[in-house]
Amino acid sequence: MHAPRDLALMTADVLARLRARRPRVHCITNAVAQNFTANMLLAAGAVPSMTLSRDEVVDFVASADALLVNLGTLDTERRAAIDLAIIAVGAQVPWVLDPVLIDRSRPRRELAATLASRHPRAIRLNDAEFRALAGVEPSAEALARYAATQGSVIGLTGGRDVVTDGARTIAILNGDALMAKVTAMGCAASAIVAACLAVEPDAWRATAAGLMLIGIAGEVAAGAAHGPGTFAPAILDTLHGLDAGTIVQRARLEQ
Amino acid sequence: MHAPRDLALMTADVLARLRARRPRVHCITNAVAQNFTANMLLAAGAVPSMTLSRDEVVDFVASADALLVNLGTLDTERRAAIDLAIIAVGAQVPWVLDPVLIDRSRPRRELAATLASRHPRAIRLNDAEFRALAGVEPSAEALARYAATQGSVIGLTGGRDVVTDGARTIAILNGDALMAKVTAMGCAASAIVAACLAVEPDAWRATAAGLMLIGIAGEVAAGAAHGPGTFAPAILDTLHGLDAGTIVQRARLEQ
Amino acid sequence: MHAPRDLALMTADVLARLRARRPRVHCITNAVAQNFTANMLLAAGAVPSMTLSRDEVVDFVASADALLVNLGTLDTERRAAIDLAIIAVGAQVPWVLDPVLIDRSRPRRELAATLASRHPRAIRLNDAEFRALAGVEPSAEALARYAATQGSVIGLTGGRDVVTDGARTIAILNGDALMAKVTAMGCAASAIVAACLAVEPDAWRATAAGLMLIGIAGEVAAGAAHGPGTFAPAILDTLHGLDAGTIVQRARLEQ
Repeated sequence: MHAPRDLALMTADVLARLRARRPRVHCITNAVAQNFTANMLLAAGAVPSMTLSRDEVVDFVASADALLVNLGTLDTERRAAIDLAIIAVGAQVPWVLDPVLIDRSRPRRELAATLASRHPRAIRLNDAEFRALAGVEPSAEALARYAATQGSVIGLTGGRDVVTDGARTIAILNGDALMAKVTAMGCAASAIVAACLAVEPDAWRATAAGLMLIGIAGEVAAGAAHGPGTFAPAILDTLHGLDAGTIVQRARLEQ
Repeated sequence: MHAPRDLALMTADVLARLRARRPRVHCITNAVAQNFTANMLLAAGAVPSMTLSRDEVVDFVASADALLVNLGTLDTERRAAIDLAIIAVGAQVPWVLDPVLIDRSRPRRELAATLASRHPRAIRLNDAEFRALAGVEPSAEALARYAATQGSVIGLTGGRDVVTDGARTIAILNGDALMAKVTAMGCAASAIVAACLAVEPDAWRATAAGLMLIGIAGEVAAGAAHGPGTFAPAILDTLHGLDAGTIVQRARLEQ
Repeated sequence: MHAPRDLALMTADVLARLRARRPRVHCITNAVAQNFTANMLLAAGAVPSMTLSRDEVVDFVASADALLVNLGTLDTERRAAIDLAIIAVGAQVPWVLDPVLIDRSRPRRELAATLASRHPRAIRLNDAEFRALAGVEPSAEALARYAATQGSVIGLTGGRDVVTDGARTIAILNGDALMAKVTAMGCAASAIVAACLAVEPDAWRATAAGLMLIGIAGEVAAGAAHGPGTFAPAILDTLHGLDAGTIVQRARLEQ
C-alpha cells in the first residue's frame, strides 16, 4: 500500500499540485530563516507570507492554506503571534510545529510541549529536539508511540529522516551532508511540509512528500555545488525545476 | 521629449550618479527583505541603513539622502519608526511608499491610505496592492488619475511596469518571470527607486530609471541563472556591472 | 615570535580547532546580518544561535562558547538582550563587541562606549566607528593606546586590517574590494573572531586569526565571483574548504 514507488509517485503528484494550486503558507518563523524559507516556498510553487504583528496575523492566517509555527528567535511579538494564529487557523487549515533548538532553552521547551498538545498536523524536528520534547530517545518505537499519543505526524530529520503517524512509518534516506551546513534548512523543510499539507489531506503522506522533496533536491543540488555557499542557491534551483522522473529515480525509502 | 532612447540614456546617467554620489538610503522595510534590499542597494552604488528603533531612526533619517517605507512584517516597532521617520525626513529628502500585501490585511490597508496622503515622492506596488489602495482596477487612466490626485508618482510593477505622474506615462517591458520567484524583489525595486530619487530630482524620471534598472538587470541575469536560486546572486552581479550600452540596447519602453 | 609565517600557521591551527571542537557562538546581531552570519559560522565549523528574547538569551549564552554583541538594528529587544547576555556570559567565556554604524547615531555611540568599558575580549570596527568610539583618528598609535587602556584587542578592518592589544600589532593586507559590496561582511567577520576566541585563549592571536581567515577567504572567493552577488556564496564555499596550505601561501602580514 505504501510501496516506495507509490510514495515517490505520490510525492511527484503533491509537487504538481503545489505548482498548480499555489497554496498560501503563512509562516511565524525565526528571523534567521525568514528569507530562505520564503524563497524555498516560492521555489516549490507556494506563496509565502511572514507577518508577526498581532494586528495583522489573524487576517493573514484567515486567508492562508497552511500555517507554520517555528519557535526560533522566539520574542514577545512571536509568542503573541503564535497564540493568535493557532486560534485563527481553525480546524480545516493544517499547521506544522517546528520546535527549533528547544534543547537549548527551558522556556521554549515548555512552550513546545503546550503547542504539541494543540494538535499540529505535523511536528518536524531533529534528534535533540525530539529528546527534549518527548523525554525519550528517538527510537522508531518511541517516535511511533509519541505520534499516536499526540495525534500528530512526526517528521524527524537527520542523516536518515523518519515519518510516522503511529500506524505507518517510512524512512527517507535521501539528502546530503551539506544540508547541515546551511542555516534554516530544517526550518525551510518544515515550511515545505506545511505547503504539502495544504494540497494533500493525508498528513502522513504530505509530511513524507515534503521531506522527500527536500532530501532529493538536496542531493541533486550537492552535485552542482562547490560548498555550502553555492549549495543554497542550488537547492532552490533544483526544487524549482524538479521533475517526476527525478523523484521516482532518486527516492530511497525504507519501511 | 521622453523618447524611449532619451529615457534609456537618462537611466544610464542616473546609474552613473548613484555610483559617483553613493547616496544613503534609509530603509524601514520588512524582515524578509532587509538583507537582499541592502545588497541590491550596495550593488547599485548606494549605501543602505535599516535601523527601526525609535531612539535611533531620527538620527539615521536625518543623515540619509532618501527614505523607503515598506509595510511588510509590520510590527509595533516598525509602525512607530514609520511615523518618526516621515516627520524627520523633511520636505527636501524624497521618500518612497511600498504598500506590500495590503490586499491581505485591513489594518495595513488603512495605514497605507494614511501614508499615501503624506506625499511620498513615489509609490511602488503591484496590481492587487493598487486595487486595495485606490479601490479601482489598475487601468492606465486610473493610475494616472490616482497619481495626479495624490501628487505622487505611481510605479506599478508586474509583467509590464507602468510609471506615471498623471501627466507623463511610460510602460517598461523589461524583466523576467524569475523575478516573481525570488522573495523581496519588489521590495528591493522600491529601494532602488528611493536611491534614484536621491540623485534625480524629477520623480517621474527617477522612478522610471529605478524600474528600468531592475527590469534590465533581471532579464540579463535570467540568462546567467539556472533557476530562482542562482537568479538572486546573478541580478546583484548584473546590477553591479551594468553599463550604459546594455541599458540603451535593452530598454523596451512604450508610451 | 610573531613572524608572519608563525601567525599564518597559528591561523591554520585555529581553523582546525574550529572544525574539531565546533564551538557554539551566540550572536546578538542585527536583522540584516543574522542569516549571513549564521552561514559564515557554519562554514567555519562553528555552531550559531541568534535568539534575542529576554526569556531565553540567558539559557543560550550559558551554553555558548563565545558571544557576539553587534549593535546594528538596535531595538528594545536587542538592548535588553545585550545587558542580560553580558551578565550571563561570565568571565571565562569571551565576547566580542561590534559597534556597527555608531558614527550615524548618538544613542548607539553612548551604548557602545558603555559596552566597551565592560571588557569585551575584542572590538571589531572600521575607521569611522573607531573615530566615533575613541574620539581620535585611527593611527597605529591611537589604536594601540586605546586597546591598552580598554584591555580589549582592537580589530580594525578596511583596505588594511590592523589587530592590536597595545603591546602587539599586526597588519593584515588580505581581502578584496568586493567585501565592501556585500552587506554584513564586517558583522560576519566579528562573529568569526568570536568563534576563534572560543578555541584560542590568546585574544590577540584569535582576533588576528579570525580576520586573516576572512581576508584570505575573501580574496580567493573574488577569483571565483562575477560580482557581489556570486561573491557571497563563494566566500562561504571558500571558508568551508580553506586549507592550511592556502592560508600559509596567501597570508600577507606586516608588523
